[in-house]
Amino acid sequence: MIGAMNFADRLADAVRAKNSCAILGVDPQLDSAKAKGVPERYTLGRFCCEIVEACAPYVCAIKPQLAFYEARGIDGMRAFVEVIRTARKLGLIVIADAKRGDIGSTSAAYAEAFLGDGDFGCDAITVNPYQGADSTMPFIAKVASGRGVFVLVRTSNPSSGEFQDIADGDGVAMWERIAARVHGWGSDYIGESGLSAIGAVVGATYPNHARRARVLMRNAIILVPGYGAQGASAADALASARTDGGGVIVNASRSLMYAYRGAAEKSAGEAAAIAARAMRDDLNAALAKLRASG
Amino acid sequence: MIGAMNFADRLADAVRAKNSCAILGVDPQLDSAKAKGVPERYTLGRFCCEIVEACAPYVCAIKPQLAFYEARGIDGMRAFVEVIRTARKLGLIVIADAKRGDIGSTSAAYAEAFLGDGDFGCDAITVNPYQGADSTMPFIAKVASGRGVFVLVRTSNPSSGEFQDIADGDGVAMWERIAARVHGWGSDYIGESGLSAIGAVVGATYPNHARRARVLMRNAIILVPGYGAQGASAADALASARTDGGGVIVNASRSLMYAYRGAAEKSAGEAAAIAARAMRDDLNAALAKLRASG
Repeated sequence: MIGAMNFADRLADAVRAKNSCAILGVDPQLDSAKAKGVPERYTLGRFCCEIVEACAPYVCAIKPQLAFYEARGIDGMRAFVEVIRTARKLGLIVIADAKRGDIGSTSAAYAEAFLGDGDFGCDAITVNPYQGADSTMPFIAKVASGRGVFVLVRTSNPSSGEFQDIADGDGVAMWERIAARVHGWGSDYIGESGLSAIGAVVGATYPNHARRARVLMRNAIILVPGYGAQGASAADALASARTDGGGVIVNASRSLMYAYRGAAEKSAGEAAAIAARAMRDDLNAALAKLRASG
Repeated sequence: MIGAMNFADRLADAVRAKNSCAILGVDPQLDSAKAKGVPERYTLGRFCCEIVEACAPYVCAIKPQLAFYEARGIDGMRAFVEVIRTARKLGLIVIADAKRGDIGSTSAAYAEAFLGDGDFGCDAITVNPYQGADSTMPFIAKVASGRGVFVLVRTSNPSSGEFQDIADGDGVAMWERIAARVHGWGSDYIGESGLSAIGAVVGATYPNHARRARVLMRNAIILVPGYGAQGASAADALASARTDGGGVIVNASRSLMYAYRGAAEKSAGEAAAIAARAMRDDLNAALAKLRASG
């Protein structure tokens, strides 16, 4: 059971306790030439859970990406449930990277799925804002039960700017308008940490946008994808940090889960743990520099 | 197995064969004061499948909304699989209303989930375009295998205009830019029907937008939610039809699935069949008027 403590405070506590703003993307890739799926002698669930267990000391949260479970049908969804249970046992916060959003009654069902107490219930969810406020509100309604929401604002993929950067007559980009709304929605849910339970996803691959995002959403926890396999450095990933270094969590998926492929002597878990510790240290070094200069 | 015939042609054939552009939204609502979930003496799967079987003669396709299955965890996903299997046996096209979209590698996994041959494999999917072209391409890549894609363009919910209607410096709304892209993406996938396997979702609650959407996407099959419980009339729902009356499919969910609540003597299936036949006739009458005036 998740308590009704503000999600932002829970997450800030976890960042402090672990001395880490790193989050583990639990994204078991599909078999393909580039990404090798599930290693031999592992089940999907065991592979994911071994990585979660091994990385737990070095990350403040995990972020399973639903697509990689859904692609495997019922077995995949069972593995997703295993991942959630393993994380709960380890006291890890779970962010469902689901990017959901629909008309109100449907969003309410999605909120029940991923922020409720059922099989797929997590601590927070990523949400797509394209359908407007009434599609986001049912998720925000779960904040009262200690859950968190991360709204897609500016994503990390190459064509993210195609619609997100379109400016209105006043020169304000779509993503900036969404950021302003996220700030407004979040202002009612600020915890003792000074951070809001309504956060934002802002990719690390565009540091200028990240800095602007912080100006627009001063209380938001910014979830930053793009570190590691997507190419962003620790300094890039922390571009939206507050002057005290807080308010940012940084995700890596493939560079942790598939670390074993470059380390033949080690198990998937051992290799992931080493990579997660290195990621934590890399981020902490960049944070120290940032605090010194700020 | 789904053949490699163009999805638009398959759907156009189904519309002709059934003499119906109606689609059944298989959306088992959660228990609440307004929507009564699953009736007594039914399992979730049996309830949904009875509705699908009963409505099959009157609809060209079904559109299960993933949220309502996900909200019920593993049992819900099993019911989703049952619905897909029942529809396949009846020769019905299945559109996964999933509104997915993410960075490329993740969208590829979603495409595998809902347009592949696994447990959750359907004929088509609804896609959220906010992350730009590279998030949509992995879905479009499945068109070669006979699958279809419906891109969210202008939705039917009250706050849909909040971001979708924002105009750029030239006065072009966000949704119109997305519509133009959908037209472009779809132009490579036009079948013998003259319609493209890349369609669009345009809500029935804004008929002016629907007419403009047809101008912008002349080859798109437009999936129209909003008829029935959401308040749009048949004429509203058909506002984006081509002059020959084609190119539109119209969804109703609650007004069919919960028809039994206003018809105490009838089973859920019997009541849904009567409502589906009435919906088909309502749409066909409006189409006849439209053809006569066009």
